[in-house]
Amino acid sequence: MPRPSTREQIVQAGLKCLTTKGFNGVGVQDITDAAGVPKGSFYNHFESKEALGAEIVERYGADKRRRELLTDKSIPPLERLRRHYERLTTLCVDARFERGCILGNFSAELSNQSEVIRESLRRLYERWTKDVEATIAEAQDQGAVSKALTAAELAGFLLDAYEGALLRARVERDGRAFGRFMKFAFSKLLV
Amino acid sequence: MPRPSTREQIVQAGLKCLTTKGFNGVGVQDITDAAGVPKGSFYNHFESKEALGAEIVERYGADKRRRELLTDKSIPPLERLRRHYERLTTLCVDARFERGCILGNFSAELSNQSEVIRESLRRLYERWTKDVEATIAEAQDQGAVSKALTAAELAGFLLDAYEGALLRARVERDGRAFGRFMKFAFSKLLV
Repeated sequence: MPRPSTREQIVQAGLKCLTTKGFNGVGVQDITDAAGVPKGSFYNHFESKEALGAEIVERYGADKRRRELLTDKSIPPLERLRRHYERLTTLCVDARFERGCILGNFSAELSNQSEVIRESLRRLYERWTKDVEATIAEAQDQGAVSKALTAAELAGFLLDAYEGALLRARVERDGRAFGRFMKFAFSKLLV
Repeated sequence: MPRPSTREQIVQAGLKCLTTKGFNGVGVQDITDAAGVPKGSFYNHFESKEALGAEIVERYGADKRRRELLTDKSIPPLERLRRHYERLTTLCVDARFERGCILGNFSAELSNQSEVIRESLRRLYERWTKDVEATIAEAQDQGAVSKALTAAELAGFLLDAYEGALLRARVERDGRAFGRFMKFAFSKLLV
């Protein structure tokens, strides 16, 4: 495997630092230290910490694995949705509840502070909701989920409820909020 | 009305600054400037910005108006719950979606950074959930809400879903996420 480029090292270190300590809790120096690259090299690749933040949000929005999982027609749509949320939960649990979701964290911290990042977050909400919506619509077409609520409403509500559960899980440092989310999602809402 | 004490001015200014710009985005100087008091006076009242943050979370947890509203037996319990969420939404809308909830914001930003604040947040989640749970239990006893799910589960899930809706509303700068929350809460979950 080729060595990751300096730019890629910065993005990966930035993702880790920013999801752990928050945008304002981390300086460019912390990110370049974590990436093992000279501080000066940061500005060869990014105009500012804000520009790096926006790029990280865009990458989350384009998450290839989420897309692949949610569109894998060899698996029933409800099972795909279940795996989708389980995958997200595993990421949080494996990080011992120390890492949040960049979407939730940046929404809380930066909605007022950066128009560029807020606009990236808005697009990320839209894309992620659309991906889940399409999967729910498939489940509805197959008769596995009632059409009483639209797929768009269900997808939007579930995404928000999941982000809220993640916030609480980080405070409680355990998976109870995720367990409750799964119970409501799969035995009360997607039915 | 007597003039608020310096300590109280600092708490009120801190609440406003911290919910708008986040914990790490605001310095002690910003808070004392907003309070119109000398910077040095801060340390007569608080050991650190963290100590002020923890006190603000404790105050949220003890929110007298929430308690009064949720326990007002002259109003049917479901109507109390509706007013409870409407009140929270109004606070956000009136601030033009620029202020978040201290619970959501600090959970995202500080769960890893401050054990003192994380512990305060844990207690706040617990108290707020208990208040909502007691109101839902009343509605269940009156036959207005099914007992298929426990009041504790419903209260926990609704609180998380509301916090998630608030995060999204701040990004979208409109009330769609709140509208969806109310629809799900009152026509799908509290039924």
